[in-house]
Amino acid sequence: MKQPVDLKPFFEPRGVAIVGASRTPGFGYGIPITLIQKGWADRLYLVNAVGGTLHDMPVFKSIFDVPDPVDLAIVILPAPAVPDVLAHIGKRGIKHVIIESAGFAEVGDGGRLLQEQATGIAAAHGLRIIGPNCLGVINNDNGFTTIETLEESHTPGSTAIIAQSGAFGNVLLDSLPQRGLLISKAITLGNRMGIDECDALEYLRTDPPTRAIMMYLEGAADGTGLRKSLERVTREKPVIILKSGRTAAGGSATASHTGSMSGDDKLYEALFAQTGAIRAASIDELIDLARVFSTQPMPQGNSLGIVTTSGSVGALTTDVAVTSGLAVPPLSQSTVKRLKAEAPPWMNVRNPLDVGPSGLFAKALSAVLKEPRIDMVLAIPLLPFSVAKLYQRLGFELDKWFGRIASIHAGAPEKPLIACAFGHREFLDIMARICGTSVPLLNSPEHAAGALAALWRCSTWKKTRA
Amino acid sequence: MKQPVDLKPFFEPRGVAIVGASRTPGFGYGIPITLIQKGWADRLYLVNAVGGTLHDMPVFKSIFDVPDPVDLAIVILPAPAVPDVLAHIGKRGIKHVIIESAGFAEVGDGGRLLQEQATGIAAAHGLRIIGPNCLGVINNDNGFTTIETLEESHTPGSTAIIAQSGAFGNVLLDSLPQRGLLISKAITLGNRMGIDECDALEYLRTDPPTRAIMMYLEGAADGTGLRKSLERVTREKPVIILKSGRTAAGGSATASHTGSMSGDDKLYEALFAQTGAIRAASIDELIDLARVFSTQPMPQGNSLGIVTTSGSVGALTTDVAVTSGLAVPPLSQSTVKRLKAEAPPWMNVRNPLDVGPSGLFAKALSAVLKEPRIDMVLAIPLLPFSVAKLYQRLGFELDKWFGRIASIHAGAPEKPLIACAFGHREFLDIMARICGTSVPLLNSPEHAAGALAALWRCSTWKKTRA
Repeated sequence: MKQPVDLKPFFEPRGVAIVGASRTPGFGYGIPITLIQKGWADRLYLVNAVGGTLHDMPVFKSIFDVPDPVDLAIVILPAPAVPDVLAHIGKRGIKHVIIESAGFAEVGDGGRLLQEQATGIAAAHGLRIIGPNCLGVINNDNGFTTIETLEESHTPGSTAIIAQSGAFGNVLLDSLPQRGLLISKAITLGNRMGIDECDALEYLRTDPPTRAIMMYLEGAADGTGLRKSLERVTREKPVIILKSGRTAAGGSATASHTGSMSGDDKLYEALFAQTGAIRAASIDELIDLARVFSTQPMPQGNSLGIVTTSGSVGALTTDVAVTSGLAVPPLSQSTVKRLKAEAPPWMNVRNPLDVGPSGLFAKALSAVLKEPRIDMVLAIPLLPFSVAKLYQRLGFELDKWFGRIASIHAGAPEKPLIACAFGHREFLDIMARICGTSVPLLNSPEHAAGALAALWRCSTWKKTRA
Repeated sequence: MKQPVDLKPFFEPRGVAIVGASRTPGFGYGIPITLIQKGWADRLYLVNAVGGTLHDMPVFKSIFDVPDPVDLAIVILPAPAVPDVLAHIGKRGIKHVIIESAGFAEVGDGGRLLQEQATGIAAAHGLRIIGPNCLGVINNDNGFTTIETLEESHTPGSTAIIAQSGAFGNVLLDSLPQRGLLISKAITLGNRMGIDECDALEYLRTDPPTRAIMMYLEGAADGTGLRKSLERVTREKPVIILKSGRTAAGGSATASHTGSMSGDDKLYEALFAQTGAIRAASIDELIDLARVFSTQPMPQGNSLGIVTTSGSVGALTTDVAVTSGLAVPPLSQSTVKRLKAEAPPWMNVRNPLDVGPSGLFAKALSAVLKEPRIDMVLAIPLLPFSVAKLYQRLGFELDKWFGRIASIHAGAPEKPLIACAFGHREFLDIMARICGTSVPLLNSPEHAAGALAALWRCSTWKKTRA
């Protein structure tokens, strides 16, 4: 197995040159704007043979004119120009390069030849390369980014993203803040001429703000290496993986996308299971699992308590939980007695616990969370929005009706607590505020139950490896 | 099998009495408000022993004082009062009753006894009963509703809902307009003392505005009856079912919710497969399948074309499609040639077709949709929202970039076309407008591919039964 590459200069460059800075809208125009906005103007050098100025900054006609210190070059040029430019960058003494250009191995024989040529030049100069056919990196700690994304996606968080595909990674980023997931770092790998997912995993393993890693993978660059990396990383941080190319047709699609050979899916299934990586079945589940794993502690057992206002959704989630290996055990006699004393006659005090419109949600949630025989809790506070609006008009806010769920969690922070709601968007926005940042609010009860089961599996796996 | 009950008086009453109209916030206070707002004041009679007025309407002290015509009573009283009130309603000559009250079979022995008593009285008077423990009905054609929900949920549409649970049905309703799904009628069944899902299915089978039926079921009231109803209804309209109680624990939860025995899940699986019902695995999938089945034609074959701006998502959806029984065949030489003539060198003209940032999305989608060898198409127009905003500032709206997808569908309306996007909410709102009402915009590529596969299975099933 090769030695992992230190990615620090990619995420914390002392100086950065944009080779292919441009007056035409596109990456060469937009990335400089983003970096200037993020406070990197004093460490930013624009390069283009035409010279002149761009965004009120001088444009250097050659990479050789760029002053020190500069340890990262971002290449945004048509693919055929890339090999020569790499040679210049190497001669200039810059060792780290992000190649954003597409048109290499992913487009067939001509591109493959070009990529081989570039690889040879990179090796001759000892270059470390991310890409080609990628968007580079985001570091939300220091504001360094080569990805033009929304300002809200730059709020520092605790989940890191490794994506093979640039466009996918960027669109994914757009949706995360609205779903309550904030990012520490992101890296898009593209065709992986040099840096691969193993390097990224190793770097993020020791990255302090990163608590969980989510990864979109089309195929491993090096299967043995991925196994060793995952074995090491999953002991310290959860790694949640969405893998495409499960079928021959899907595999053929990845080959023409990032030149990846996706391989036999059964091998990956085994690889993930053996190394304790968590596999997501869909994009939505990838996000939901990341929200749960980046915020919740490991459960001490598999006993789930469910508190809800909807018996139907209680039954549906019980199904998913039990199918996924969790138990939904009876509540203790003392808890049942205590809750029954306050409950209306129509309320069944059991697990799953449907409090209906009794107004007992907060009390029930707190009691179930503190039950010694309960290891984790799923809170499902549902209310028709017309009713919620009526309550609000009567001065009765939803945090009184459902309790401040974040504060309730503080009563037993050692147990995982997930909330789940669906319905009207405005209702969900209110519920997200009530849940705060410590309790993830998911929109799919099935994903919520599945995520708690995944937490339990991960905790069991950790114990067997301890 | 019993004769299905005609539900017309529940959905189109000539006059309706609210027994338990009340000055205290709750159903008895809110339902009259809703009915008055919907134009039913002249056919509405409020009943409460205290008399007086409510919402500027007289309150009758007894059901016997209510003038004709009146053919529906809505009962909103504590459970123990219900048997006597049913007897009065029967004596008054009203034959149709919705009992909203909870506290019957779902709460154990005492409630079960009460429900048996009520059932006996109903039989003696020949009453047709929806409930107890339900919210009743919605008819968006004439504005009649016993469910207090958001005004936007009352926009007439083509999907009907059968839900066993009231609260769940109501919260579900909240989310549907924002997801592009409009409702024709809804019925919540509760404990099913009288009217059950078979009656509801039969009524909706011949309901003109209803094009598809979505159903949440905890357990069949009558398995043989359900089989016969489904066999008849699915020949004419798709029925999409979310069934809980798959596990013993989930089944026990449904028993305490609506008193349902959920039964062996394998039997239901077989029942649904044999009758051509479509089973949803989650609430989200239930909604997505309903959106697709209520708007799209049946495909003539299983060949799927995928057009996207993201190679990753193209690969992921290809996986799901192929796993679900669809083919993703190569495009014809003539189409490949025509698209290649306009495509940039980095673009792979194949199926799935990733057009990247070429700007060729609309042209490619139109060409693939018209391909004789393609039976259905999945359009996945993704764009980072920061880029979309930049385009907008340059006066370049997204309908120019992606084409008016609804108009493109008009070029081959006989083929199913689904769009899928995820990312920032505002981006999704814009895309929903571009897709119009004829092309459902889903947020999960996995569900989108799965829904097209379900369309294909349904079309095959129909052919074997023709």
